[in-house]
Amino acid sequence: MENSLGKLFTITSFGESHGRGVGIVIDGCPAGLPVAEEDIQKEVDKRKPELWAGATPRVEEDKVEVLSGIFNGRSTGAPICLLVWNKDIDSSGYERMRFLPRPGHADFTAFIKYGGYNDYRGGGRFSGRITAGFVMAGAIAKRLLSQIGIEVLAYTIEIGGIKANPQSIDGIRENAARSPVRCADPIAAKEMIRVVEQARTEGDSVGGIIEAIALNVPAGLGEPAFDTLEGDLAKALLAIPGLKGVEFGSGFSAAQKRGTENNDPFAIRNNHIVTLTNNAGGILGGISNGMPIVVRAAIKPTASIARSQETINLRTVENDSIEITGRHDACIVPRAVVVVEAMIAVTLADFALRAGLIPRVIK
Amino acid sequence: MENSLGKLFTITSFGESHGRGVGIVIDGCPAGLPVAEEDIQKEVDKRKPELWAGATPRVEEDKVEVLSGIFNGRSTGAPICLLVWNKDIDSSGYERMRFLPRPGHADFTAFIKYGGYNDYRGGGRFSGRITAGFVMAGAIAKRLLSQIGIEVLAYTIEIGGIKANPQSIDGIRENAARSPVRCADPIAAKEMIRVVEQARTEGDSVGGIIEAIALNVPAGLGEPAFDTLEGDLAKALLAIPGLKGVEFGSGFSAAQKRGTENNDPFAIRNNHIVTLTNNAGGILGGISNGMPIVVRAAIKPTASIARSQETINLRTVENDSIEITGRHDACIVPRAVVVVEAMIAVTLADFALRAGLIPRVIK
Amino acid sequence: MENSLGKLFTITSFGESHGRGVGIVIDGCPAGLPVAEEDIQKEVDKRKPELWAGATPRVEEDKVEVLSGIFNGRSTGAPICLLVWNKDIDSSGYERMRFLPRPGHADFTAFIKYGGYNDYRGGGRFSGRITAGFVMAGAIAKRLLSQIGIEVLAYTIEIGGIKANPQSIDGIRENAARSPVRCADPIAAKEMIRVVEQARTEGDSVGGIIEAIALNVPAGLGEPAFDTLEGDLAKALLAIPGLKGVEFGSGFSAAQKRGTENNDPFAIRNNHIVTLTNNAGGILGGISNGMPIVVRAAIKPTASIARSQETINLRTVENDSIEITGRHDACIVPRAVVVVEAMIAVTLADFALRAGLIPRVIK
Amino acid sequence: MENSLGKLFTITSFGESHGRGVGIVIDGCPAGLPVAEEDIQKEVDKRKPELWAGATPRVEEDKVEVLSGIFNGRSTGAPICLLVWNKDIDSSGYERMRFLPRPGHADFTAFIKYGGYNDYRGGGRFSGRITAGFVMAGAIAKRLLSQIGIEVLAYTIEIGGIKANPQSIDGIRENAARSPVRCADPIAAKEMIRVVEQARTEGDSVGGIIEAIALNVPAGLGEPAFDTLEGDLAKALLAIPGLKGVEFGSGFSAAQKRGTENNDPFAIRNNHIVTLTNNAGGILGGISNGMPIVVRAAIKPTASIARSQETINLRTVENDSIEITGRHDACIVPRAVVVVEAMIAVTLADFALRAGLIPRVIK
Repeated sequence: MENSLGKLFTITSFGESHGRGVGIVIDGCPAGLPVAEEDIQKEVDKRKPELWAGATPRVEEDKVEVLSGIFNGRSTGAPICLLVWNKDIDSSGYERMRFLPRPGHADFTAFIKYGGYNDYRGGGRFSGRITAGFVMAGAIAKRLLSQIGIEVLAYTIEIGGIKANPQSIDGIRENAARSPVRCADPIAAKEMIRVVEQARTEGDSVGGIIEAIALNVPAGLGEPAFDTLEGDLAKALLAIPGLKGVEFGSGFSAAQKRGTENNDPFAIRNNHIVTLTNNAGGILGGISNGMPIVVRAAIKPTASIARSQETINLRTVENDSIEITGRHDACIVPRAVVVVEAMIAVTLADFALRAGLIPRVIK
Repeated sequence: MENSLGKLFTITSFGESHGRGVGIVIDGCPAGLPVAEEDIQKEVDKRKPELWAGATPRVEEDKVEVLSGIFNGRSTGAPICLLVWNKDIDSSGYERMRFLPRPGHADFTAFIKYGGYNDYRGGGRFSGRITAGFVMAGAIAKRLLSQIGIEVLAYTIEIGGIKANPQSIDGIRENAARSPVRCADPIAAKEMIRVVEQARTEGDSVGGIIEAIALNVPAGLGEPAFDTLEGDLAKALLAIPGLKGVEFGSGFSAAQKRGTENNDPFAIRNNHIVTLTNNAGGILGGISNGMPIVVRAAIKPTASIARSQETINLRTVENDSIEITGRHDACIVPRAVVVVEAMIAVTLADFALRAGLIPRVIK
Repeated sequence: MENSLGKLFTITSFGESHGRGVGIVIDGCPAGLPVAEEDIQKEVDKRKPELWAGATPRVEEDKVEVLSGIFNGRSTGAPICLLVWNKDIDSSGYERMRFLPRPGHADFTAFIKYGGYNDYRGGGRFSGRITAGFVMAGAIAKRLLSQIGIEVLAYTIEIGGIKANPQSIDGIRENAARSPVRCADPIAAKEMIRVVEQARTEGDSVGGIIEAIALNVPAGLGEPAFDTLEGDLAKALLAIPGLKGVEFGSGFSAAQKRGTENNDPFAIRNNHIVTLTNNAGGILGGISNGMPIVVRAAIKPTASIARSQETINLRTVENDSIEITGRHDACIVPRAVVVVEAMIAVTLADFALRAGLIPRVIK
Repeated sequence: MENSLGKLFTITSFGESHGRGVGIVIDGCPAGLPVAEEDIQKEVDKRKPELWAGATPRVEEDKVEVLSGIFNGRSTGAPICLLVWNKDIDSSGYERMRFLPRPGHADFTAFIKYGGYNDYRGGGRFSGRITAGFVMAGAIAKRLLSQIGIEVLAYTIEIGGIKANPQSIDGIRENAARSPVRCADPIAAKEMIRVVEQARTEGDSVGGIIEAIALNVPAGLGEPAFDTLEGDLAKALLAIPGLKGVEFGSGFSAAQKRGTENNDPFAIRNNHIVTLTNNAGGILGGISNGMPIVVRAAIKPTASIARSQETINLRTVENDSIEITGRHDACIVPRAVVVVEAMIAVTLADFALRAGLIPRVIK
């Protein structure tokens, strides 16, 4: 069950980078949810490579196919299977690298774990391409969350050392989606593009940080002791290739704060219970407290770089080197933003169902 | 199943701070594992409040009771239930605070989620005390991991802004356990005690960062796409009260690195495949690569502080204030170290079983 | 997770026949459910050995202890741990039989599976005694189901070839509980006692059939394709030692029926949709249809009989024989009735929660 | 997760009768298993409608498509997605019956559970057609079990009251597959065809009983207390539409036996530990004992019959009647045989992996 996630809203991922296609089965979606194929397509399109000059390494035109679970424009209560086919891709380049694990990639660990039987072409099961399935599931989850007013927004706050200035919610809504790097701060965005392009020119790559907020999450989501909101969000996010750290609210910076600073005082404002600060990131004791959920995720620099790198030969078990050809994203952060959004939506949908906030049939 | 964690090595937590006791059921432990009650007791004792002057807020003498699953000094293959009884504690102080949620605590979210029926005394189910159960499970998991040579070491690397200098493995093994703050750098440890004491004096508290390494983890642990080693470690760690962020290897600092820096080159050294650096923290594609697993966790400053804080009254729904009396740890980081170790051990035990590395019967 | 059952209402069993005690952890019970210790005790008392002369082999006075999850007379939303301690029992007799697996018992399979490390005393983990835990969970589940009017009734319909005549619901409610063999037909009950006593006199044992009905189950319970109401009920029941078959509605007799006989016509009666017959046993497509759930379970004759039986010696791997001493139930059917009721209640509680029929907080 | 089954070898079902297709995702299959598309196709072909004159109601030419998880003729360790497309079928007939639930079918319960949003065409998700997915999973499971010599054989032992005489294993292997009714007793088979044809002629239908044995199952499979071999087999089988009862070994007839008859004595034969009888059906305490697993399942008469039947109108909530047109199997028992085999194979594969009997990588 390692390719399934979630208890009541469960997604099961399948497919490989250079196989027939990439898909997802969504089990537990209430019946009656209005879902148009376009809703899903729109999300998948956000995964497209960047628009700015020179940034497009590989064209993917992923047309979403609904294989089951949607009938007359609504979910039926049965499992929803969604698929994008892979285009015919020349995989011959990967034969050459088959026994030369690329540093920073899963080639080595997959080879060991699956005894060399794994589909190694294009990273196979470990390619970022499988996140197309995550995004399709995210589209359904977002539709479901919209029933109770929950909105998830992810955006880039740092790339290659360039940090964005904080923006208003409206600023994020307006600017992040339009920015090629999904950054809501237009000035920082420009800088970010520059450092990505510079890294690419030098045959190198850069990483970054994505922040996400979930708005209108009612208090009470999360199922401690173990199925905490933080724990399940972190687990879902860490399934995204290249993501190496997750923090909530003040996160790692809390280590340098005092209790008097970090505690969020409760107060009544406009007849609502709020906290006056949000160092908790909207989560106390593993349960949402009604404030915006705030989570940040660290993305490492793209492992595929156009430089010769030291590696070993898995067949001869000797030192060797590898040069990765082809075009690759010099920074995957912008494309990962919609995937972060999807994984958060999927997790919140599961908790909303577990908390009984969404009925089993949507009228 | 929200109080259960793990697929083959499954722990189920029960108990509250001021109830009868705190326990854990461990399901899936192979038969034949030699386990002495002392092994478990030793781990539980590490949770004891600190030894330095003035640091001991509440005396807990937790005597481990084995209720099932161990017979003639060995695990039987049946569920192991372990329990520590709660001492008679005066809970009357909590009546006063019943409707005044403490900032930074789960009082508010628990009240909302459980409709006020939760056991609120001493934080009830959300008290750090329930981690006594985690630690007992960790003791069993460590015994199991020792069968295949895996060792887990956690230690404090930062408290209240004081950062420890990196130490050798031997230095960590020797110094961390003896340090009252579980820090392997003796000079920093002294400083840390000072800042904790200062915070306490000022009615305040401090947070910190715990690092953990797992040694001799063979390549191949982790079950992607979703049950990644990072994901399940993060989820397990985030069940620890006060823990707000998790990162692996270079983690958040990867965001500022280039691919050329962050990629770990593969090489043959002493007939073993290694990586020359370990920015991946021993995990590639969600699977262990044979290098030490490296994980860091951020702990927020203790929420219980001896200052008046703004809060609300849940009954009258009006603004109010609260002053928490009694003695509390001014820094929970040192006591959380053994819990971090336990949760990592529990997670690795689960993955080792899933990978078939530990037989179902230990001879 | 093999000792856990249920997805939202999850029970985790622990304990052995001659260990410290037998317990159960109930996870997922909504907060606010009124539960008195007496409610649980009353159910456990129904497991007591029979009252008629000579039928009492082993005295068990099981006093239920609540270790967690209930506070001020109500469930808190936290895991409920319930325990009955084992009395000091002389286990020395079992040493003699340690390597002589008793025919019809799990001694052999447990020895093989757990490499001889299993607690063999009194059947250990495979003793009927562990069903005391099931019954405690059943008590909670029944309380929960009573919130939505569901009632579960189990009763003996056959023992040692003696078949009971069908009784009215009221007849079952009145007579089954008072009958020493839990049979609602007083005439058959008398006969049953006679055949049990005769078998006992001859050093032999008899089996039987238990029927159970669940009343007021609303249409819509069950989660196909795989979590069908029949499937999960059967799985839950087959955890009861000695239970070897399960059927629903017309069950095995449907094999001899024609579609015209077996199909249940739908009709409106008193403004309710009903079926005019109930060959489906209240379940269509794995989902309850609003009619009474009807299930029957076959219980084999007690494996412990006072006759010399052929067996093998597991140490010498030679043919041998065994004579089981001590007193044993000559028929476990009457004591299994409350366990059948419990397992059905536990399963229905899980499905009622999954269908959203019971709120997460009970006011 | 209601459409997933199994803990280590997990199958996830999707698809509907008149939608795009029917599929299955198999998660947890070890890497390196040789699998040819033909192996899967061969099993699916066994679901074909019968060969004898007049017995073929609906032509299905199901061509298996491998969407993921198999590469160069071997499993890769990644999820295996298998699909059969639905042919263009005229669904217009179902519009007419949309609000007229067919007696014995899931139309009514699905309507209630999914609020009328379910795909009602051809029974949608509740059609026997979804078992095409089960059978594809069974094909993989059988390949896996063949690695350790386990063989699963299912065959008809009763149809419409006609009982087959017991046959030898070789007789079953030879005759059952060739018989149009999958019955190993050629004389009874002829009779069975006759009663099926007679029922069809009369616009009626018949049910029957399928027996299955699993050979060479080593002692030790099954994970009590709750994941018993019987429990999980029963659950898996009860997912098959129309299956209403399951029994193991002497099953329901054990209720009429005495302990002296029903207990299986242990003995050494040819240096193996065996039982001299097999009333336990190869399972003691929920764990296989090394003898053949013996299970029987009752299949009800086909619900679709060519007679006018009483029903209700779900829209008007008035009494009504329905006449089902089109051609339907007058007995689904023969087609269910391969599905029974599949579900047993899937369950045993899961337990074999859980017991550590099959390595994670097959060389």
